[in-house]
Parts: sequence; structure tokens; C-alpha cells
Amino acid sequence: MSASGTNEFSRPSGRAPDQLREVRIERAFTRHAEGSVLISFGDTRVLCTASVENRVPGFLRGKGEGWVTAEYGMLPRATNTRNDREAARGKQGGRTLEIQRLIGRSLRACVDRKMLGERTITLDCDVLQADGGTRTAAITGAYVALVDAVHWMTKRGDIKPKSGRSAIFGAVAAVSVGIYRGVPVLDLDYAEDSDCDTDMNVVMNDGGGFIEVQGTAEGHAFRAEELAAMTSLAARGVTELVGMQREALGR
Amino acid sequence: MSASGTNEFSRPSGRAPDQLREVRIERAFTRHAEGSVLISFGDTRVLCTASVENRVPGFLRGKGEGWVTAEYGMLPRATNTRNDREAARGKQGGRTLEIQRLIGRSLRACVDRKMLGERTITLDCDVLQADGGTRTAAITGAYVALVDAVHWMTKRGDIKPKSGRSAIFGAVAAVSVGIYRGVPVLDLDYAEDSDCDTDMNVVMNDGGGFIEVQGTAEGHAFRAEELAAMTSLAARGVTELVGMQREALGR
Amino acid sequence: MSASGTNEFSRPSGRAPDQLREVRIERAFTRHAEGSVLISFGDTRVLCTASVENRVPGFLRGKGEGWVTAEYGMLPRATNTRNDREAARGKQGGRTLEIQRLIGRSLRACVDRKMLGERTITLDCDVLQADGGTRTAAITGAYVALVDAVHWMTKRGDIKPKSGRSAIFGAVAAVSVGIYRGVPVLDLDYAEDSDCDTDMNVVMNDGGGFIEVQGTAEGHAFRAEELAAMTSLAARGVTELVGMQREALGR
Amino acid sequence: MSASGTNEFSRPSGRAPDQLREVRIERAFTRHAEGSVLISFGDTRVLCTASVENRVPGFLRGKGEGWVTAEYGMLPRATNTRNDREAARGKQGGRTLEIQRLIGRSLRACVDRKMLGERTITLDCDVLQADGGTRTAAITGAYVALVDAVHWMTKRGDIKPKSGRSAIFGAVAAVSVGIYRGVPVLDLDYAEDSDCDTDMNVVMNDGGGFIEVQGTAEGHAFRAEELAAMTSLAARGVTELVGMQREALGR
Amino acid sequence: MSASGTNEFSRPSGRAPDQLREVRIERAFTRHAEGSVLISFGDTRVLCTASVENRVPGFLRGKGEGWVTAEYGMLPRATNTRNDREAARGKQGGRTLEIQRLIGRSLRACVDRKMLGERTITLDCDVLQADGGTRTAAITGAYVALVDAVHWMTKRGDIKPKSGRSAIFGAVAAVSVGIYRGVPVLDLDYAEDSDCDTDMNVVMNDGGGFIEVQGTAEGHAFRAEELAAMTSLAARGVTELVGMQREALGR
Amino acid sequence: MSASGTNEFSRPSGRAPDQLREVRIERAFTRHAEGSVLISFGDTRVLCTASVENRVPGFLRGKGEGWVTAEYGMLPRATNTRNDREAARGKQGGRTLEIQRLIGRSLRACVDRKMLGERTITLDCDVLQADGGTRTAAITGAYVALVDAVHWMTKRGDIKPKSGRSAIFGAVAAVSVGIYRGVPVLDLDYAEDSDCDTDMNVVMNDGGGFIEVQGTAEGHAFRAEELAAMTSLAARGVTELVGMQREALGR
Repeated sequence: MSASGTNEFSRPSGRAPDQLREVRIERAFTRHAEGSVLISFGDTRVLCTASVENRVPGFLRGKGEGWVTAEYGMLPRATNTRNDREAARGKQGGRTLEIQRLIGRSLRACVDRKMLGERTITLDCDVLQADGGTRTAAITGAYVALVDAVHWMTKRGDIKPKSGRSAIFGAVAAVSVGIYRGVPVLDLDYAEDSDCDTDMNVVMNDGGGFIEVQGTAEGHAFRAEELAAMTSLAARGVTELVGMQREALGR
Repeated sequence: MSASGTNEFSRPSGRAPDQLREVRIERAFTRHAEGSVLISFGDTRVLCTASVENRVPGFLRGKGEGWVTAEYGMLPRATNTRNDREAARGKQGGRTLEIQRLIGRSLRACVDRKMLGERTITLDCDVLQADGGTRTAAITGAYVALVDAVHWMTKRGDIKPKSGRSAIFGAVAAVSVGIYRGVPVLDLDYAEDSDCDTDMNVVMNDGGGFIEVQGTAEGHAFRAEELAAMTSLAARGVTELVGMQREALGR
Repeated sequence: MSASGTNEFSRPSGRAPDQLREVRIERAFTRHAEGSVLISFGDTRVLCTASVENRVPGFLRGKGEGWVTAEYGMLPRATNTRNDREAARGKQGGRTLEIQRLIGRSLRACVDRKMLGERTITLDCDVLQADGGTRTAAITGAYVALVDAVHWMTKRGDIKPKSGRSAIFGAVAAVSVGIYRGVPVLDLDYAEDSDCDTDMNVVMNDGGGFIEVQGTAEGHAFRAEELAAMTSLAARGVTELVGMQREALGR
Repeated sequence: MSASGTNEFSRPSGRAPDQLREVRIERAFTRHAEGSVLISFGDTRVLCTASVENRVPGFLRGKGEGWVTAEYGMLPRATNTRNDREAARGKQGGRTLEIQRLIGRSLRACVDRKMLGERTITLDCDVLQADGGTRTAAITGAYVALVDAVHWMTKRGDIKPKSGRSAIFGAVAAVSVGIYRGVPVLDLDYAEDSDCDTDMNVVMNDGGGFIEVQGTAEGHAFRAEELAAMTSLAARGVTELVGMQREALGR
Repeated sequence: MSASGTNEFSRPSGRAPDQLREVRIERAFTRHAEGSVLISFGDTRVLCTASVENRVPGFLRGKGEGWVTAEYGMLPRATNTRNDREAARGKQGGRTLEIQRLIGRSLRACVDRKMLGERTITLDCDVLQADGGTRTAAITGAYVALVDAVHWMTKRGDIKPKSGRSAIFGAVAAVSVGIYRGVPVLDLDYAEDSDCDTDMNVVMNDGGGFIEVQGTAEGHAFRAEELAAMTSLAARGVTELVGMQREALGR
Repeated sequence: MSASGTNEFSRPSGRAPDQLREVRIERAFTRHAEGSVLISFGDTRVLCTASVENRVPGFLRGKGEGWVTAEYGMLPRATNTRNDREAARGKQGGRTLEIQRLIGRSLRACVDRKMLGERTITLDCDVLQADGGTRTAAITGAYVALVDAVHWMTKRGDIKPKSGRSAIFGAVAAVSVGIYRGVPVLDLDYAEDSDCDTDMNVVMNDGGGFIEVQGTAEGHAFRAEELAAMTSLAARGVTELVGMQREALGR
């Protein structure tokens, strides 16, 4: 399962199987949002902003708790060939809706919504440039923007820490893994993604727990031991990413 | 991990942790479609039809191969409280799109699309009554409808078996698993689904390979060993379901 | 005008000109709705559910009366060739809107809306299989679902019968009639419908009064005496249908 | 049933029960369309244009025959209170679709579509001012615009009369009838329409044949003899209207 | 820059360069609206209605001031070839939205919105026949409809004049200008519009102030002195139009 | 007209009346597009990409010439408070359509479309951060992206220069001007834009010709001499901007 003895194996990028792309996290990338992060996983660049609003969706009105939601978009020419602008087509595609639902669920997993009061934090994740792994970069970056927004709310007094606890518990990050030419690899770029047998997105917290696991056999079906190898590889990647998030947040 | 020694543990339905609901598969439920199956997983009832058309989507035109796709819907009062009709609202929701993408991908995994010629098989999965697990019932039932449609095409001469091989290789079935009150359980009904910590949908083939794994932590994050226990439970469920599919198909 | 002396005349189905198809009415077909009826007019099968909600449309708010409305849909493969799913196309077609408006008007004609209080009963009529006459089957079945829902409301105490009167007065049923090869015939199936000169849908109450009459000349225009023959034939059909509704309701 | 002996009976407009409103038909109201007619039934004013295009809908392509279709609209302030503009709301309502389908069917009943060749005539009926009976005015006016367009096509040589026959056979006109305070009345205006027991729209040809009959009981259900009285009244109204169409066309 | 010495120059219509088309303003064209004006600039005919409603958009609620807005539409066959009906296509095009925004802004420039109270005046401008300059005709006619509506509100006591001042200050009118074959010309018709180098729409008040200036180089870019010549020509045209508005209003 | 002698006058930004904000033009900001420019006018930052595709809109098919079009978008949190995502609302707003039509027209003014062949260049202008003047920044930046795309096409041989002429003639740039507290000022930022009397967007070429002039009186109407002062100020601004474009392009 390990690539160590495979002389011929090489990734298109030349990375080791368990090696992340270069990750950069730039806070305060734009100035209006309560949190604004430009995250790069190699050539994949996603702008994640967190916006705080004093309202909640209808189903939460009057319940004294808040909401965290996400929207995802890709600029038309973030990709190799131009995609139609979803605003012009008049609807968001299935892939977009699927991804933004995933981002929202993932980040709600680390928020104490009661502490937010009746407020909504919207995480807008807009892909400026795509090279595979946009949803995992979006989750990892949106977490940082979310922390900044919660910090802003706490400074304003909108959130009162309870017994010193923040409204954010733990950290959340995500990474993709796959089976590329028979070898489990971490953090697929586009070249690998479009040519691999299995593609899996894994969202975890900093305690090593799984929040979301979404694996798809692109070619042949995968076995239980491949699943185990991939999730174990993802766990190592997420540990590294959580360290980078901490560093970016100056903790 | 097994519940056998847990005296206090019981599922709302009284089922054993590794027990499926009663599954019924009724072929030729309606008369127009090339395949038409009413599948029940307990109180969940999904009508799955397979329709054959002599056209393919634009991106496949002229390539000499076929397409398999799915659409999913839920009658407005399939559920406990009435949901808006998607046709009246003017769009399919994110959940619907996500599910129909999953069904389509899952079934394409067992079809030799070259053998179909430039034809499309559309699997319409409409939920008449919902009690949890509609997407896994849909995949399991749609497989049977698909086999019927391919059989119909073969009898007409639209498909010519190559060296005796059918255009369908293997079988595909799906089941949900979850962690309910600390115990991994198979085939969640609505009562369990809305009260469990983790919910996972697993699509597999009859060779024990995974086609899709989608797990979500609803409450606390789950651990690698819980993931392993769940996928192993799913594998047992899928084996049973594949047997029922075979029986329904009279093989 | 009568077919009695026409030796050569025969309907595709072999029925007598004034003979209904076999009608079956199955109550409690699904379990969540307050009324749930599967009605069959021969091969035409429509699932009619009645849903009670504690709200009324804006134009009735604060007026102390209720509303009865209908929605109609056809599963994509209810017909001989697959139709686009309206939810996927993003709008309901003109035929669908026309039919659901007709169903709603027809059933409002037998309800004392003041007695409902500020509640809405929505009748969802979904065609599982089509063979002509889906709108008349829908009206006839929706009436039974409506009675069940009003019964449920009465048992809960939402409706208080006034001087022993129910909120439903009389019964409503519908049938199609047409001129097929010069002969007025009752309850057209698809083969007759697509090959007849005139097609008329008639909604009546159990007192022999007309609620809706919608006749269309498909081929040549029809005469006053043909109109009279058709409405008289419809009256006989509705009388039979009302009897079947009563029987199904155990009255 | 007749109002002759009813001393107290009077219509809001003071008209006799069998009296049409003043009808005006103005041809060439606008200059671009191949037929352009402003028709007034009293205060109801509808602009009907006929546009000829060298194309047919997909289902007719290559069949060598033409198509006649209609679209209907109402200016936002054609009515007493302003209605939302359908273009701004992003869809046509059910009433609009129902009416334009009726207009299209009615006029196709008098056209030999083979003689049109692969051309489409679109009848746009836009209500400038509404006072009841907009759909019947639209049908009556659209017929005149259609004749003008067919004449234009014939002059251009697009249509070649066969054995001297025009592509239009007979005339088509429409009128509403109803039961107002127990009396059958012809050509309801808005005051009557909103206060009558039964409302019926009748489309007929100049041979006295019925093309469409659409009757709705607004209050109590109507009886067979009321239906007969209404259709007979409609027949008289249509005869008058056909005379006015002829006069307008200078025949 | 003047055409006076240009012997060869002539406009398609034979008008002098600074000559408006024949303008007609017909008040009370329809009877329901609070203001209803049919305005003609030559063959361009626009029906402008003003509707008063006791509500304001959300952003003004509770602020004690009113709103003035516009909607614009063109009948499908107002033009030489038929355009799709925007209601049927399901959205208003960019041109339509641009024009209705312009009309709304232009007329808000002459209204004291505080004096309206929390009421909205909607100006519906529907083009019955188009021959160039529909937006400028619409603005000029909508002003007259607006004055009528404000007069109606004042008579009802909805508006109380302050120190004798009306809620309308000044007059607003609009005209197009362009460079046609090198000569600045006033009030372009369609023949000129589709063949000119520069097209400019100018909205002004009766004090000679500019409210909107929108100029577009269709062919070669225009110079500062051409801009000055065009705006000066527009000012003369607007002065004439304001005179006609006054006359129509009987002032 | 100059503010030099006005001791009290100052702009919120402290700039001189005729001073542009700091402008930065960064080419190749993303890697997939044929032209990709991040342009900043102070805190306004717009990503402009040019995409080349081998197809033209229907109305140009078979005519041997190309098309240049633009789309405009604003990230939801580019502004001070979050705006709804247009893709989620299901349509582009009027302001968006108006701006993208302006950008497209402006850039078509400097392209020889015959030389492009049957190809389309789409300019996507997405605002990452807004502080006034997004449309003028977009036009100025899109020009640079367009030049890069045409250069790429020329290098590939898609475009063959004719007699040494490029497919781009001249340069196009845009700037806003306004009357702020009585003084004409150049390049308004958001603070000025929301508090000025007149706001004008001016698009010019490098020969000093006007391509588009769009002026709106926000407060009082403006006079001919104010219009002249503003366009003259704009001309100076555009001259500077054209110099920066040249420098960015290395010419």
C-alpha cells in the first residue's frame, strides 16, 4: 500500500504520496468582511469571507440561537476552459449546491450556536483559481475566517464567552485523498483528480474525529483496506493543516 | 462494538443492530416503462422506473457510447409534514440534486456504456412514502429497473452481448448505517436517522467493493474504528440486498 | 345518437358506450397524509393525498375561513414516452396548471370553508400511470381523500359540526365523455382520447348539478344535441362514481 | 328561465339579457404586424396582432405543415387595481396559460395548416383595458387579425388557394354567458362576472358548431336546462359577432 | 456643425435636423389608472399609466416617505419582427431593466417623496408600436401620467400641498439626439437610429438642467464639441416637449 | 471651476480634485485565462479575465466575424454589507446587466471583429472589493486583459495582422467624475459617490474621443458648463489611465 518501494511511481507534481501542496493562508485579504481569508492549496486559490448579520433563517426565529451557513462559487474562468456564470444561467448547479451544503455542515460542527445569539454567519467561498481540491481548501480557509468573525463578535460584546470558552470548539480542516495508479496519495491536484481511481474528501477536527467522509470510486470499486489507508493519510494531512491554521491565527 | 451484550440497547423498531427492515421488490409496477420497480425498505417506498431513449447528452454525441442518469423526487406528502412541490417552487433543492447525482454515479459504475450505443437510460426514483433511507432504497431498486431495461434492449437487439457478457457487470446496492446511542446499526429508519450521531450511506457492488461512502457526523465526530465498524456492517447489509435483487430478478 | 343499433361500432377496449372502466378506490394508501387515496380508472392510477395545515393564503388571512387547493403532477414515466420532470425544467406546464386549477375549483364547490377555520387543505394528485382521464380520476379520488381529512379534523375537534352538518356538503365526482366515431362514449381511455372528435370533462355533484363542463372539439365542431347527449351520459357516469365513493367511504 | 316576465330584473349595465355590449373592431391598429386588430367589447379592449414567421415548433419540423399559436397578456393596470407584471415576476400565471391555450386551440379549428407550409402564425392578444370577457374578445379579434395575416400570405404567394379555397375555413368567434340573479345573460361585464352563479365561455364557428364550451358554477351547481339555455344564448351572440367580423373585413 | 449649408443632407423622414416628430399626448386613454397617457412621437406609441398604492418597498418602510418607480415593456409585435414575450421567456432582458431604471430615476427627480407619504406610484410604460425613441417618449408621457396621479392624490387628501407647493416640482421630459451623416439631429426615428454614428438620450427639467445624459458612440468616437452640439439641440427639443406637456395638462 | 482657490474644500480622501486614486494593474493574476488582470483603483479591486472560445452567438454564425462580450459580478461581501449572491437568487440584477452591457459595448469599440474570425472573447469582470468606480475600473482593466488575449491569439496564428495592424485599434479606458460639494472631482470613491450631486461615467479612447458618457443628477440637475467641466476632467483622467495601461503592457 505504501509507495516507498515503488521505484516507478511518481505523482505529476513530483510530490511524495503523503505530501500536501504548498499551503498559504492570508488573513484580511479584503477589508469589509468580518473575516476574510485567501487560502491557496498550490494553484487552487479560494477567497473565504465570513459575514455576520443580525438575523436567522425562519426555522430558527425566536429560538435564541444562531446559524452558520456557506455559499460557494467559482469565477467563470477559474478553470482551464470557461464555465457559464451561474448567475447568468439563473441557477446554481448541483455540484455547487452539494459543495456549499458540505461546507456549511462541516463548520457548524465546531460552533456553539447558542452562544451566537440570533445571528447568522455566512461563509462565502469563491474560487479565484482552480487546480483540484477547491472544496477542501474552502473548508480549511473558511474555518480561519469564521474564527476571525467570532473574535470580532466577541470584541463587540455580541458573544460573551462562557466560563472562558469560545463559541468555536476545536478546529476543522479538510483534505482530499485518492488512489492514484494504485497508491494512496494526499491532496490531489487537477491532473491527479481527473486520472485517479478513487477520490475522497475528508473533513476532520483537531481531535482526530471525522466530520465528513465522502469517497467515490471513479474507476474500480475500492476495498476496505484502501478506505482505511486513505482515511489514515487524510488524518495526517488534516493534522498538518490544523497546524497551519493555528499559525495563521497567531496562536 | 456489537450490541449483543447490551441489555439496555434497543432500536425504536425493535430490530437487531444488524437487521435490515423488511425489503420488498415488486417488478413491473407500472406498465409503460422499460423497467418499473416498487421497492420498499419498511415504510419507505420508492417507485423506480428505467426509460430508454435514442439520444445522448451533448457531450457524448457522436462518441458511440451511451449514458445512464437519474432523477429523484419526493411526492409532497411522502413525509410527515407536507413539503413544497419542487415543480411549483420552480427548482429542485440541493438535497434532491445531491441524491440524484449519487444515484446516477452509483449505477453508471455497473454499466458498460459502450454496449448501450448512443442511448440514454434515465432512472426516475420517486418516493411515494418516506421513512428514512430513501436514497439507498432508490439505488437498490433502480438497479433492478436498470437490469430489466437492459434486458428489454437486448431482446430488441439494441444491445448485442459481447462474448456472452451483458451490458451490466455485477450488481449494485446501497444501505445506510449509523451510530445510534453508541451502537452501529444497519438501515436506519426515520426515528433513528433524526436521533443518531452519525449517518452513513454506503453503495457497494456484489464483489464487496465500495462505490460510494458518504458519512456525516451529526452529533460528535466519529473515530476510525467506528468508520470501520459501520462499513463492515454495511457490507453485510449489501450482501443481503444483492441476494434479494437476484431473487426478484428470478436468477 | 345511441350506439345500440350500430352493429359495427366497437370501442378499443370492447366496453359498451356507457360503460366506465373498472374503478378501484384504495384509502390509506400512504400513511402520513390526513387523507390518502389511490384511485384507478382502468390503467390510469392517481395517488391523491389531502394535507391539513394551520395557515391560509395571504388573501384570506384574518377572515376566519379556510382554503382548499390542489396540485397536480405526473411522474415522468407515467406515460408511454418519458416526459421531462417539471421540477427539473423549473416550471409547471400550462396543462398542469390548468388541471390543478380545475381540481381545486371543483372540490371547493362542496366545502363549507367557514367551518374549516383558518386552515388549508391541499390535495396533491400525482399520476403514477396514465391511460386517459387523469384529471377526472384525480377529482374523483381527491374527493375521498378530502372527506377523510375533514373527518380527521372533526375527530381532533378542529371542525365542529353545525346542527349535525359536516363541512362537506354533497359529493363531487368527474368523468370524461366524448364522441368516438360518431357515438357518444363514457370515460375515454388514451386510445379513444387521441382518436376522438370531441372530448369533454364533466364535474358534477351528487344532486345532478354541473360544477364544471369543459368540452373541446378535436375534429369537427359539435352540435347542441351532441352536447346534450354527452352531458347526459356524464351524469350517468357520475352517479355510478358517487356510489363507488360512498362504498369506499363505508357509508 | 326567460327574463321577459321578470319586471324587477335588470343588469348593472341596463342591457337586455340577450344584448351584447357595443363591439368595435379596428383593423390595422398598429403598422408592423401582418394582422393588427383592436377589438372592444364595451370597456374591454384587446390588441390582437398576427405575426407570420418562417419556422415551426420542433414537433412539426419537416412535416410540411404550419402552426397557429397564441400568447395572452394583460397590461399591469388594465384592471381596477394593479397586477404584477408577469415578465417581472418571471413567469406567466396559470390563468394566462389557460387562456392562451384556449385562444390557440380555438383558432387552429378554422385553419388548414397544410396550406400554411412550414410557417407559424402567432396571435398576441394583449389586454389594454379589462372589464370582463377578455378571452372571448381576444378570440373574436384574433380571428380578424388571422384572416388579415392569411390574406397577406396569400398575396405574397406563400399560400396558394386550392380549388379556390382559402386556408381559413369558416369563422370563429366567442362570447361569455352566465346565470345572473337566476337569468341567463349574454356577454358578462366585470360587475356581472364577479357576482354571477355560473360563468361560461363559448367558442363557436359560423356554422353553429361548438368549438369550446367551458362552464363553471361559481355559486350553486347548474342544471342541464340552464346549460342548454346558456349555450343557446351564446349561439345567438356568436351569430351577431360573426356578422361584425365580416363587416370589419369588408365582406 | 449646423446642417443649414448642407444642400445634400436630408433625413429619411424629410425633417429638419432640429425638428421633432409629431407629438401627441392623449390623457385618460384607459379608465382604471390614476393617470393614463398615450403618447406618440411619430409612429412610436407608448401607453404610460400611473398607479398609486398604499405601500412602499421594504427599504422605505416606516420612514414616512413615498416611492416612484417604473416598469417598461414592449408588446411582442411592437417592432418590425416579433420579439419573444418577456413573460414567456421568464425574465426581463437587460435592455428592459436598463430602460425602466432610467425612467424611474428620471421621474423621481421631480417629486417631493416626503409629501407622498408611504405610498408608491408605479409608472408602467408599455410600447404599443416602436419606431425609435421609445424610452424618451416613455419618460415624457409618464411625466404627464404622474402629474395626473398626484393631482388625484391631492384631491383625495392623500397629499396636502405645503405652502401651496405641489408634490411635483418642475417638469421632466426627454428626447434623443444623434449624429446622423455628420449632422446633429433631434429625435431619431428607427431608420436614423440604426444608421447613426452616435446616439444620445437626454433627460432634462423645465429649468434647463440635465437629469440624465447617456451617449453612446455607435460608429466613431465623438468629440467634446459634438457632445456640446447634441446637448444643446436636446435642450431645444425638451423645451418644446415641456410646452406640449403643459398644453396637454391644460395649464 | 478649479478647487485650487477653495480653502475649505477637501475630498474625504484628501486627494486634489483632479487626482486619481492609486491605480495598480497586475497582469497574469490567474493562470488559466488568455488574459487575466487584477486592477485596483484605490480600494476597488476587480479581477478581469479574457477568455477566447471558438464560437459566436447565433446572430453572427456564418458571417466570418467575431464577438466581444462582458459579464460582471460582485462577490457577495465585496461591499460593506453582504449582498445576496446573484446565482443563489436565480438572476442578475438590473445594475449588473446594465454594467456588463456597458463594458461589452465599450470594448467592442476598439476591436476589429472581422480579424477575430468566428471567435468570442468574453471579459469577466468580478469585483473582489468595492469602493466606488467598479465599472470604470472594470473597463480599464478589461482592456489590458483583452490586449493580452488578442496577443495570445495572434501568436497562435488565430489572428493574422493585416498590413501590420493589430485587431485592437487604440486604447479604451474609463473613469468617473462628479460634482462633489460644488466642485468637479475625478475618480469618485464610495464616500464621495454616495454624497455627490452628479455622478458621471466616461469611457474614452486614446485619441480623446468619447465612447460612452453616462451622467446622472443625484441631487440637483446639472448645467451645460458643469457637463463640460466634468468631461474635460474625465479626459485628463483617461489620458493618465491610458499611460498606465501602456506601462503595464510593457509598451
